[in-house]
Amino acid sequence: METKKRLEALRAAMKKNKIDMYLIPMSDFHASEYVTDYFKETEFLTGFTGENATVVVTQTKSGLWTDGRFFIQAKRELKGSGTTLFEMGEEGVPTVSEYIKKNLKANQTLGYDGRVITLEQHRKFEKIAKENKAKVNIKKNLIDGIWKNRPQFPKTSLWILQKKYAGVTLEEKLSDLRKAMKEKGADAHLITCLYDNAWLLNLRADDIASVPVFMSYVYVKKNKCVLYAFPEAIDKKVAKYLADHQVEVKDYEEIYKDLAKETAKKVLIDPTIVNVALIKSFPAKTEFVEDFNPTEMARSIKNKTEIKNTKEAHIKDGVAVTKFIYWLKTHIGKEEITEMSASDVLLKYRQEQENFLDVSFDTISAYGPNAAMMHYSATEEHNATVENKSFLLVDSGGHYLEGTTDITRTIAVGPLTKEEKHAYTTVVRCNLRLQEAHFPKGCIGQNLDILARGPVWDEGLDYRCGTGHGVGHILSVHEGPQGFRWKVADKSKVWELKPGMITTDEPGLYVEDGYGIRIENELLCVEDKKTEYGQFYKFEQLTFTPFEVEAINVEELTHLERKALNDYHAAVYDKISPYLTKAEAAWLKKVTKPL
Amino acid sequence: METKKRLEALRAAMKKNKIDMYLIPMSDFHASEYVTDYFKETEFLTGFTGENATVVVTQTKSGLWTDGRFFIQAKRELKGSGTTLFEMGEEGVPTVSEYIKKNLKANQTLGYDGRVITLEQHRKFEKIAKENKAKVNIKKNLIDGIWKNRPQFPKTSLWILQKKYAGVTLEEKLSDLRKAMKEKGADAHLITCLYDNAWLLNLRADDIASVPVFMSYVYVKKNKCVLYAFPEAIDKKVAKYLADHQVEVKDYEEIYKDLAKETAKKVLIDPTIVNVALIKSFPAKTEFVEDFNPTEMARSIKNKTEIKNTKEAHIKDGVAVTKFIYWLKTHIGKEEITEMSASDVLLKYRQEQENFLDVSFDTISAYGPNAAMMHYSATEEHNATVENKSFLLVDSGGHYLEGTTDITRTIAVGPLTKEEKHAYTTVVRCNLRLQEAHFPKGCIGQNLDILARGPVWDEGLDYRCGTGHGVGHILSVHEGPQGFRWKVADKSKVWELKPGMITTDEPGLYVEDGYGIRIENELLCVEDKKTEYGQFYKFEQLTFTPFEVEAINVEELTHLERKALNDYHAAVYDKISPYLTKAEAAWLKKVTKPL
Repeated sequence: METKKRLEALRAAMKKNKIDMYLIPMSDFHASEYVTDYFKETEFLTGFTGENATVVVTQTKSGLWTDGRFFIQAKRELKGSGTTLFEMGEEGVPTVSEYIKKNLKANQTLGYDGRVITLEQHRKFEKIAKENKAKVNIKKNLIDGIWKNRPQFPKTSLWILQKKYAGVTLEEKLSDLRKAMKEKGADAHLITCLYDNAWLLNLRADDIASVPVFMSYVYVKKNKCVLYAFPEAIDKKVAKYLADHQVEVKDYEEIYKDLAKETAKKVLIDPTIVNVALIKSFPAKTEFVEDFNPTEMARSIKNKTEIKNTKEAHIKDGVAVTKFIYWLKTHIGKEEITEMSASDVLLKYRQEQENFLDVSFDTISAYGPNAAMMHYSATEEHNATVENKSFLLVDSGGHYLEGTTDITRTIAVGPLTKEEKHAYTTVVRCNLRLQEAHFPKGCIGQNLDILARGPVWDEGLDYRCGTGHGVGHILSVHEGPQGFRWKVADKSKVWELKPGMITTDEPGLYVEDGYGIRIENELLCVEDKKTEYGQFYKFEQLTFTPFEVEAINVEELTHLERKALNDYHAAVYDKISPYLTKAEAAWLKKVTKPL
Repeated sequence: METKKRLEALRAAMKKNKIDMYLIPMSDFHASEYVTDYFKETEFLTGFTGENATVVVTQTKSGLWTDGRFFIQAKRELKGSGTTLFEMGEEGVPTVSEYIKKNLKANQTLGYDGRVITLEQHRKFEKIAKENKAKVNIKKNLIDGIWKNRPQFPKTSLWILQKKYAGVTLEEKLSDLRKAMKEKGADAHLITCLYDNAWLLNLRADDIASVPVFMSYVYVKKNKCVLYAFPEAIDKKVAKYLADHQVEVKDYEEIYKDLAKETAKKVLIDPTIVNVALIKSFPAKTEFVEDFNPTEMARSIKNKTEIKNTKEAHIKDGVAVTKFIYWLKTHIGKEEITEMSASDVLLKYRQEQENFLDVSFDTISAYGPNAAMMHYSATEEHNATVENKSFLLVDSGGHYLEGTTDITRTIAVGPLTKEEKHAYTTVVRCNLRLQEAHFPKGCIGQNLDILARGPVWDEGLDYRCGTGHGVGHILSVHEGPQGFRWKVADKSKVWELKPGMITTDEPGLYVEDGYGIRIENELLCVEDKKTEYGQFYKFEQLTFTPFEVEAINVEELTHLERKALNDYHAAVYDKISPYLTKAEAAWLKKVTKPL
């Protein structure tokens, strides 16, 4: 097998470079969640195509760590690859750190490319190496020499997101950022997060599939702002726009050289994002203020324009998905439909919408047991036929000039078993319970998560992922800092839910070799009552597409859940039906009538 | 007024001792939650009788800080006292630290008695003083000289909690403790928490009203265990018991002298409990391992004997409270009943139970608007007549040889308003929702709290306290580390809910000048299913006394809540009716029949 040969080549390179243990994360120079093909070293080496992977290779072993979303897929893809799966978070499975701690011997060297490892990760690995009396080498990329046809480094063209879409200008954003820097006592700020850079500058591009960003660093000082990007990606219009806003442009590669000459005393950085190679470039005397990037919080709280536009984007997206469901229900059993052909039809409906730019991530169209893999994606070799029974799970989204969407519907394509109906009803209850939350200022996702998870926990079940994530605005469909999760992490306290934040609500049930159910809506946090007990918040629905009434056991819903469902369905009909054909609207009327 | 004169005397003492700002917490030398009268310096000085108070006095101002449970009471009691109320946690109200930071001037001295301030508190105050270029004096107690008839220092007799009640012997507990010390790398451990000392030694006494502990320090080393207590409190039997278990006994006061000569290298202490005067007594070279006392976690997880016995205690307690409710309902309107006379009747029913030792805290018997004060206690001057309408809230508990109870019932003593019924129904829902929780290993109270608080948050309401606290076993009725609260604190992660922990479930609604409703049951955390998603936990009810069916709007309950209520009431009848008179049992049958 190809992957085994690649492993051999890597091991030869390790020997040559005196590296005993080599670590490869699925990451780019910017700690991006999704990476462009250029950076898919873990996939090149192991064949695993999931979106979360860390590989650790020694002369005798090769291990790959991924999370619960990908266990089933990883088992299949790693078969015969020479690399073993480590199921993150499962009992008895060591973490990457624990594995290194146990296997890195005295006088050995742990190696990785410092450009793809964050300062925080590096500190952890360095500490382990020190404890084990071993060394760390961050200078070598050992895949470069092996990967003959490595994809091109992305350099797509930048374009300006106009004020009517961005809501707030570059000047205003820069001015706010400089205020935040001052408050934190920093005279400079290095931003390496691609979402932050795109958001701050009101620029977009196409460097990562479905994530309209561009490879870049931004360095901000009191009277200076430098964008490090590829000159060939910047046309005259963008160049003028940047010049007009006193943003200096330098080549992407120049940053290391520039940082080495840097005179700032205190540089604000987020150690969980900035790569260690950049940090090591600064003069030794530079001090760092370690904190979140102020842009991360700022962009998570959508401005009025973004909110108004996002609502429009969701109507368009709801129309596309509703039309798709109608098409599926009226065509299933009459013609051959596969996971991929269904996905193509959905794309067509999205493309019909005005200002549609791109899908916001690879559509997950998963039939029957395939849907038990949370992040399954159909390929030419694995493209199941959608039969006239059970569920087709479709998790998809779009980027529109107005905003970004993320929606999952699990569609009944024929008769359902008793178990499937009960499971679907349970997931509906999970979804509605979170949507209906009212909570005071100060709550974090961890306070609310049990609302969604309660009905599955009651049965000793769970889903191996968060209940929801923030959604970027024509940026990554996943963003922080907020989210719905139950495990309380160190920094949870700063993840307060705030008005203007948009978070998904996507509980599910996944039965290996059986079926997968997920229902995902997006929720906008808004102000509720203000009383003697303080300011309360609640959620406003952004997503409008019907649930599967035929899959719901009404008697399992509480009267509160039933009311929430009926209210939601009434809103779906109101908002979506004006954009449908007569036949589609008649069907929508039927499936949204009160239960 | 008396309190104004006392303030004057304190201010004179402050001048004499060159102390510009004097701080007095409501605390003893052991950071006990409830303190014996000897330590009620804040009450002596201000007249405020609530159980949480910190007073800060300067030459011109005197302020008292307390929490939401006591706002209404404090406003009343501080009227004309010369001391102003600071409502902790309210918007715009400075904390004690913020107040000191703002008002302590350069070169001034902040004073307090180091014996009543924990190391952690001291560090905070010392830091502020340093920032303000001020000094701290921890050596002076300025109340001693003013308080002429200060109550006696408590020295009640110790008694042995037999193995059949304690479940685990002193040897076993000491052996486990030494293992935990070793794991933490400590060669000595100073325990100053009175609950820990009583639990560890299987000894009890009566030094604090309703908290059967004794003034003591315990110092544990590998081959040595010293109990510092009052010799006159130890009779021959207890002395022999301690000697038989190699526990050396020294005078309570000797500890400071002994610590000064201590040779241990690393002493395990909990900086949130140990007072700073003790810490300053150690030789300068002593190092400290700062962590929770292992005994705190150990005693929060009840052993099999404690659990079995606690269940028995709750049956007895349920019988007493049920008889009391029947008595109240059959006597109200026919004879004069006051808050205090009702409380006396309840006490009589408890005293009729075998092995009853004492109430576990001062009974709160609060009629109508008085119940809006969460920790109201009736006094000769404030003792309302219970009229034939609205609610009487009774929060009470008992210590039995088998264990400790804490229960609140809000009893309808006549016709209720629509608002009262809706409020009562809401609190029932809050209570049942938490009781019904199922959750995986790893959850903390913050994950679950919204189950209880949800229904009140939905209406923009709240209750200004945690939803529940741990319950000590013939110890303080309040204990940690677990609890149900929603605000995530720094150390929340260690407060995992574990099987064997007993926590109260006591949501409420409090309407100033209106009414107060609280329904409190105790919940035992037990194992639920173990599935591919891990070990799940749930709660087992310990408290069996009926809710007020006449106050419940059945149509507001979900079908799940109604089922939980009916199941609970069926269990109440099964467990309690065998111990009732015929008339009582007939009534209980009626009020527990399924809704």
